[in-house]
Amino acid sequence: MNEKKAFETVRHSLKPRRFEHTERVVEQATKLAEKYGGDFKKIRMAAILHDYAKYRPTEEMRQKVMKNSTLPMRLLDYGDELLHSFVGAVYVKEELDIKDEVILSAIRYHTTGRAGMTLEEKIVFLADYIEPGRTFPEAAEARKLAEDDLDLACLASLKNTIIHLSNKSLAIYPDTFEAYNDFVNK
Amino acid sequence: MNEKKAFETVRHSLKPRRFEHTERVVEQATKLAEKYGGDFKKIRMAAILHDYAKYRPTEEMRQKVMKNSTLPMRLLDYGDELLHSFVGAVYVKEELDIKDEVILSAIRYHTTGRAGMTLEEKIVFLADYIEPGRTFPEAAEARKLAEDDLDLACLASLKNTIIHLSNKSLAIYPDTFEAYNDFVNK
Repeated sequence: MNEKKAFETVRHSLKPRRFEHTERVVEQATKLAEKYGGDFKKIRMAAILHDYAKYRPTEEMRQKVMKNSTLPMRLLDYGDELLHSFVGAVYVKEELDIKDEVILSAIRYHTTGRAGMTLEEKIVFLADYIEPGRTFPEAAEARKLAEDDLDLACLASLKNTIIHLSNKSLAIYPDTFEAYNDFVNK
Repeated sequence: MNEKKAFETVRHSLKPRRFEHTERVVEQATKLAEKYGGDFKKIRMAAILHDYAKYRPTEEMRQKVMKNSTLPMRLLDYGDELLHSFVGAVYVKEELDIKDEVILSAIRYHTTGRAGMTLEEKIVFLADYIEPGRTFPEAAEARKLAEDDLDLACLASLKNTIIHLSNKSLAIYPDTFEAYNDFVNK
């Protein structure tokens, strides 16, 4: 699938505001890839498709988790917000016939992160957090860090996500904590 | 070992200020046990001994972790502050000949918590966090919650610990976030 086709696909899957967010994530990811490296084409493709499943019905995605043995069952115990990343990677593989694991894992972990993130995963994860449409102060902090240090910027994003969820007494997906500890120990 | 002997033992192991903290933890744990139940004598004994290893040399405790197969090796990757709880439970068993697992586990998890805490573990954990010598605002919040709901008070303590560590970009021991998620899901 080429980029034009991928953009057209998500334009039809997403609401206009979400599509504009996607365009900004692609632009942000492109800048990060130019600075920090990684597979340029795969990073852009993952960024284009990262929210492919954003508007799928929650119940459909929960069913997918129950039926697909590659998806972790524990997803069902955490916020539904996480489903579109993990299940989205499966939809992209099955429906768009994209089998490249570099692209798929960058989609899969774009919300939670994980311990041992690849360069491509870090860039898509961070681009989603700092694209210019994110106007909360923590995004500005991570954006500033991203000018000099990709890992420190990822750590700041994870840290702020953990604080945000803790303040609301919401469950925190284990991958997020493991990613946080991983970056702390770097 | 009776309480008098246990108090004498820790009086000699701890600096005066830490011994006074221990006395307050015992008093606080006693109040919580009167309200919420649990094994009264074991809760008091665990509270008396919870900081038994507080002033052992860090290197000695790290060596103990390396040599004792019942202690998790990953302790060495986190803050040394955690050692006195986990290694303390081993010292209490070996040196004071206390083999009761209800007492030992309340000592072991008094700093980190864990998923599936026993009533006795919750009470010692919380008493350590809210005893009157803890003057930070988060302790007051947990103290208030402890008047009505032990689990909500434990959740508040864990939440605040996670936020505190995240703000300092310090590693968070897995048991702590597993305890947090466990209480969130209750």
